[in-house]
Amino acid sequence: MRVVHSPLHARHQGGKELHRGELVPCFESPARAELILEAVRRAGFEVSEPRALSAQELLGVHDAGFVDFLRTAHAEWRAAGKEGFMIPSAFPARGLRQDRVPAGLNGRMGFYCFDPGTPIVEGTWDAALAAAGCAVTAAELVAEGAPSAYALCRPPGHHAGHAVYGGYCFLNNAALAAQRLRELGLARVAVLDVDAHHGNGTQEIFWERADVLYVSLHGTPETDYPYFLGWADERGAGAGEGFTRNLPLPRDARWPEYAAALEEALEAVGRFGAGALVVSLGVDTFAGDPISPIALGAEHFPLLGARLASLRLPTVIVQEGGYAVADIGGNVLGVLNGFERGGD
Amino acid sequence: MRVVHSPLHARHQGGKELHRGELVPCFESPARAELILEAVRRAGFEVSEPRALSAQELLGVHDAGFVDFLRTAHAEWRAAGKEGFMIPSAFPARGLRQDRVPAGLNGRMGFYCFDPGTPIVEGTWDAALAAAGCAVTAAELVAEGAPSAYALCRPPGHHAGHAVYGGYCFLNNAALAAQRLRELGLARVAVLDVDAHHGNGTQEIFWERADVLYVSLHGTPETDYPYFLGWADERGAGAGEGFTRNLPLPRDARWPEYAAALEEALEAVGRFGAGALVVSLGVDTFAGDPISPIALGAEHFPLLGARLASLRLPTVIVQEGGYAVADIGGNVLGVLNGFERGGD
Ligand SMILES: [Zn+2]
Ligand SMILES: [Zn+2]
Repeated sequence: MRVVHSPLHARHQGGKELHRGELVPCFESPARAELILEAVRRAGFEVSEPRALSAQELLGVHDAGFVDFLRTAHAEWRAAGKEGFMIPSAFPARGLRQDRVPAGLNGRMGFYCFDPGTPIVEGTWDAALAAAGCAVTAAELVAEGAPSAYALCRPPGHHAGHAVYGGYCFLNNAALAAQRLRELGLARVAVLDVDAHHGNGTQEIFWERADVLYVSLHGTPETDYPYFLGWADERGAGAGEGFTRNLPLPRDARWPEYAAALEEALEAVGRFGAGALVVSLGVDTFAGDPISPIALGAEHFPLLGARLASLRLPTVIVQEGGYAVADIGGNVLGVLNGFERGGD
Repeated sequence: MRVVHSPLHARHQGGKELHRGELVPCFESPARAELILEAVRRAGFEVSEPRALSAQELLGVHDAGFVDFLRTAHAEWRAAGKEGFMIPSAFPARGLRQDRVPAGLNGRMGFYCFDPGTPIVEGTWDAALAAAGCAVTAAELVAEGAPSAYALCRPPGHHAGHAVYGGYCFLNNAALAAQRLRELGLARVAVLDVDAHHGNGTQEIFWERADVLYVSLHGTPETDYPYFLGWADERGAGAGEGFTRNLPLPRDARWPEYAAALEEALEAVGRFGAGALVVSLGVDTFAGDPISPIALGAEHFPLLGARLASLRLPTVIVQEGGYAVADIGGNVLGVLNGFERGGD
């Protein structure tokens, strides 16, 4: 399968995040993408660059004010003479208003964010837009007839909602791919999210839509990030009622439990009658991942790939998380090889 | 006037907060209370300790699950072998659920919090409960006939809501004082908040109540913390409709603008027909304050005190913010002296 990747991802680097109460270099590092790229190149996959995306093309998924904020925030921060990391000092959480965007930069930053671990750095916008471009380009390849394509996105996207960023994510690459497939004529698109964390952003974006099914396997929000979405009782609303499906797993779930939930997810996608599939692929389900709630072995990733292929759908695979850097290339390659060998 | 203060405040120390993207020692330091204590002692005020408060006595203002969380969180953190600062990694902000408390400690911490700058340390609960005790004891002195009393509280309280902490605040001392005055027979109690920041917690606690008026002067949320509450259009709801009054001020407002808004606030309290007054006294309105949106001079604090006294109401003054540590004692003393000399 074709791989779409942009070197612009490297512009998003140097940030720090709060981890166990200390500021540490972000787990979501440029090395992640470099090592995946090296692995897929060595395995003989053809890698191409994405087409350029305009900010306008994001508006099928994202809010215009939010996109503007992401595009200009760092320049505004620098113009105000500020230093350090762009991390909000308050969030519109419980007991606070969510209906008014403060005019100042600090307030706007908190308004559009939900966590203190996703700093915006100078190159964040360039990298995020390029990652969105990878996902959209991969969707276009598949819409044009490729059986599958892999968008090697960085930063990841599934925690980014319609107008909110967090969890290392700024623009929702998988949602943009699904939306692009819809625009190109696919009537029903399924997003299957196998990252170790719930894709709260993707769920939120398609919450009231019946044309995009969202199914996710992830560590339960009872104990795992992002904590405030991803329970089994979330099923969509309005026209989207029944088109969200969450399969939370207990902490440190292993392959047998994971595989059983995966079969449920595949059945849900099958019943939906999707014309295409978008996979939010996080390999932070790996047991060696430093921030992972799920404990798969490297040998399970090819099995996962094969089961995804068993749906026999045109498929866009979008890179999400995975923070066991030394193993990330091999684990992603395991999924892609498993997918290409196919399932039955 | 009598001063109520507890040395237990010093157990809350050693935390770090995010400021301009770096972890720095909390601006809300033990030295703040020590320097105020020294100033009031030197000026001849009588200082006494508060009575002990039970967690049960907090429930007129705070949620039981929230109180339990604050009481046990640090022990739980330590028992789990965690280190560093207790700062949440995600908040139930936009696009996320606020109706489900995750079981795990990290999720519960984010659920009950709205900012990453208010770490819970080992002695936080002891200090917060003692501060609440100061406010309640001062309220009891006033209910028993003292014309006024000053609760030298630390940590402060006005950002803490019914079930949410943040902004250096854990328990809402001023709200507990107002509630205690109500319990002791005062039919109508006004809270006048002159801290430089909006008292989002106090407003939220009394939002639907007609028996407690909340009036606040503060830097506009357009540019200042806490950003997501404190606009002029917030007037209360249900039975409390019309019993919240916000007077946001433009950034770096000086005495003339401040004094004009103060007169409006005093008129609102007068019209309400309060039987007692609780003042949330922050001296972070001082121009030299490192995180202040308002620019009063030291000479304005006695004027403020005199205007507060002009209401001629039994008054509980509760310490909130003030981070220009070298000046904090003099500025607080200015208010207290101005109040005692009285206004007309
Ligand atoms: Zn993840
Ligand atoms: Zn303040």
